[in-house]
Amino acid sequence: MSGTTSLPAAEIAKTARQASFTIKSLPGSDRDIALDAIYDALLAFKDDILAANAQDMEAAQALVAEGKLSTSLVKRLDLSRPGKYDDMLQGIKDVRGLEDPVGKTTLATKLDDNLTLHRYTTPIGTLLIIFEARPEVIANISSLAIKSGNAAVLKGGKESSHSFAAIASVISEALSSTRIPPGAIQLVQSREAVKDLLDQDVYIDLVIPRGGNDLVRYIKENTKIPVMGHADGLCATYVHADADVKTAVDVVVDGKTDYPAACNATETLLVHRDVLGSHLPSIVQALQLKGVSVRCDEESLAALRSADDVVLGAAGKTILQSATEEDYNTEFLDLIIAVKTVGSLGEAVAHINTHSSSHTDCIVTTDETAAEEFCRMVDSAGVYVNASTRFADGYRYGFGTEVGISTNKVHARGPVGLEGLMIYKYVVRGQGHTVGMYGSGGKQFKHETIDL
Amino acid sequence: MSGTTSLPAAEIAKTARQASFTIKSLPGSDRDIALDAIYDALLAFKDDILAANAQDMEAAQALVAEGKLSTSLVKRLDLSRPGKYDDMLQGIKDVRGLEDPVGKTTLATKLDDNLTLHRYTTPIGTLLIIFEARPEVIANISSLAIKSGNAAVLKGGKESSHSFAAIASVISEALSSTRIPPGAIQLVQSREAVKDLLDQDVYIDLVIPRGGNDLVRYIKENTKIPVMGHADGLCATYVHADADVKTAVDVVVDGKTDYPAACNATETLLVHRDVLGSHLPSIVQALQLKGVSVRCDEESLAALRSADDVVLGAAGKTILQSATEEDYNTEFLDLIIAVKTVGSLGEAVAHINTHSSSHTDCIVTTDETAAEEFCRMVDSAGVYVNASTRFADGYRYGFGTEVGISTNKVHARGPVGLEGLMIYKYVVRGQGHTVGMYGSGGKQFKHETIDL
Repeated sequence: MSGTTSLPAAEIAKTARQASFTIKSLPGSDRDIALDAIYDALLAFKDDILAANAQDMEAAQALVAEGKLSTSLVKRLDLSRPGKYDDMLQGIKDVRGLEDPVGKTTLATKLDDNLTLHRYTTPIGTLLIIFEARPEVIANISSLAIKSGNAAVLKGGKESSHSFAAIASVISEALSSTRIPPGAIQLVQSREAVKDLLDQDVYIDLVIPRGGNDLVRYIKENTKIPVMGHADGLCATYVHADADVKTAVDVVVDGKTDYPAACNATETLLVHRDVLGSHLPSIVQALQLKGVSVRCDEESLAALRSADDVVLGAAGKTILQSATEEDYNTEFLDLIIAVKTVGSLGEAVAHINTHSSSHTDCIVTTDETAAEEFCRMVDSAGVYVNASTRFADGYRYGFGTEVGISTNKVHARGPVGLEGLMIYKYVVRGQGHTVGMYGSGGKQFKHETIDL
Repeated sequence: MSGTTSLPAAEIAKTARQASFTIKSLPGSDRDIALDAIYDALLAFKDDILAANAQDMEAAQALVAEGKLSTSLVKRLDLSRPGKYDDMLQGIKDVRGLEDPVGKTTLATKLDDNLTLHRYTTPIGTLLIIFEARPEVIANISSLAIKSGNAAVLKGGKESSHSFAAIASVISEALSSTRIPPGAIQLVQSREAVKDLLDQDVYIDLVIPRGGNDLVRYIKENTKIPVMGHADGLCATYVHADADVKTAVDVVVDGKTDYPAACNATETLLVHRDVLGSHLPSIVQALQLKGVSVRCDEESLAALRSADDVVLGAAGKTILQSATEEDYNTEFLDLIIAVKTVGSLGEAVAHINTHSSSHTDCIVTTDETAAEEFCRMVDSAGVYVNASTRFADGYRYGFGTEVGISTNKVHARGPVGLEGLMIYKYVVRGQGHTVGMYGSGGKQFKHETIDL
């Protein structure tokens, strides 16, 4: 099985950088042809890839039985789940269908007669993508890299090693018939390679980790290359004093239970004191029906205890617990929610700006002024009004597929699509212009916007 | 003299972050009022500040006499140079006059009925700016931070300590009468503080170094906070086979000699083999008249040796030298240029993509196709056609003043104005929408662009 490389990290990174100069300057049509080739090849070799994936699943299930691997990880590994493989293929088609992000003019200024300034979008250069289980990420990220004219080095997790090798082989073979240089997409299998790759800050421009908190933290601690992603997804939903009860129930239940292992799941429920008696019992009852454990501060617990029907869960056992301070800093990724009482919108905002991971936070309210204040004051990548935090996703935002979700404060924030893989360059065109011509006593700049 | 803070770094950074939440949500009018207050105060206390600056100058000149400080650094320190103080004041007015960068809508999508997505520009949050001699940077950066709604911690160099303290005091006093919280602009004097501040990645979002290579390298090596700036400015100008001689002379001489200590000065001259005899002698002659030492590869040296008039400089002494390989990797920041012969545009591009610092590189040519190929292939923040590399500057680009020039591949590249201090947030507004409503068998997203 070929396709993956075992060259030294510096060699891999240097080759990727060289290839980035080529792929960067290929026209969009060549990049689209490469996406078609990948699509066709992954479709043709579906059986082989699923067979390799089955080997990974077998090994993973053995580890689950020994308690060494979580079931949620195994679920992410499984390419044979209904629709999963087709979704992977459709993802490539979706990316191909997106507008070419390379070479767009984002600024044009006449600096002076016959002296112009343009800003054009360009690929960043070389990406390093490190991911755990989720073999379809290889196809996904390769597509995004090619469409955006970037070179990429991909390193998969050991749990998906067979799937990874099979997909890598198919992609490499498919690209060999296109104008994409082989170094533009390199697939690295060896586990030891990660640390060495993280040292290649001379050649690699951006690291994108796709995986759990530990992976992301490790990467952030061990590289000087900029990292785009998120370690935590600690999202809160705040139920304001004037919230509609049904809206609150719907938004909180969906935010918590639609996919609890996701980074955009709601982990903290903030409730205004005035609606502890009127709204909270309905919310908690609905959560309990979905099997959610509810960890409350004293005030909310007291309010719930006086509403008998919710104290006992559907199964008749108490699933109300007292929250600890740590619960408000915890990304449960599970059917657990922490509840806290607040006295005002300002208190809710302060809690979020202190405890949340600046990923996605929501207010449930019928008051537009309160909603706008929340949106202005909450310092998160996503700020929501009356909508589930689970909407934080590139596909749902209409970006096609996504590279990941960023909680960075620079470059790109929130769900990142193709735009997050772009930077720009400035082009100045003159006719022998020198700066010595300008300034006191000399020429003056015109700085007129050129209509695009 | 008050104005600077000596709190522990964590306290400074935490206070700045808290203040960032406030300044972020102030309307533009409050931020403009603060800029007026700073302008008025710096005008009123001009004499005091110049007196403090004179103390710094005296100390610096003593160090120059001992050979411990460069004269170029002293030049940058001097606020009493004609026009310098007025330029500093004008810079504040210029920034005030710029469009408010906060809260612009950069994307609006109807996800579904009554479910919208907007992307708004927001301040990054908390900046740490570290600079060496150049006391006017305090006013400059404080203005940019306030205009862009960011909190900033400013750390000046020891050479400008008196100037810094005086300006800091005036700015702090001026801001105390405005709605900008005192923590939003903090001025740190103590030298030991730098390392501790660089550790505050929990509170500080971006570091902007303004100074020499050593400072920038030190900062990049010692922080996990994203750093925006450039260590090197190794710019090249390539004279293509069909270049106009006068254009080549003008662009190279201006690029090299207009301000040799600047990061956008030309350091390397690449010359096409075909014009070694016809163009290079004129270029070198003009450079020699400006006192530039020329370090040549064998081929260009031979060509020049056969053109007698340029072998001897104006003063009659030979200032042609042989170049070493290291010269092509050196930012001279002085009246020295390295010359290299290339056989094609591709060779020039390859040299630039390998040796330049991706700052600003230029081609001199009369062929539009060659120019466009150069622009597409050269991977630098600025790619120029027939214009001096010295144009790489925020003021000349029409951005008002600049934060610095970035050679980063993410977030912001080239001269960085207000835009580089902004990020964005996504706001989703719904009416109880849940993701459970969507998908197979459920609702479909509309993803329609909303006209702005």
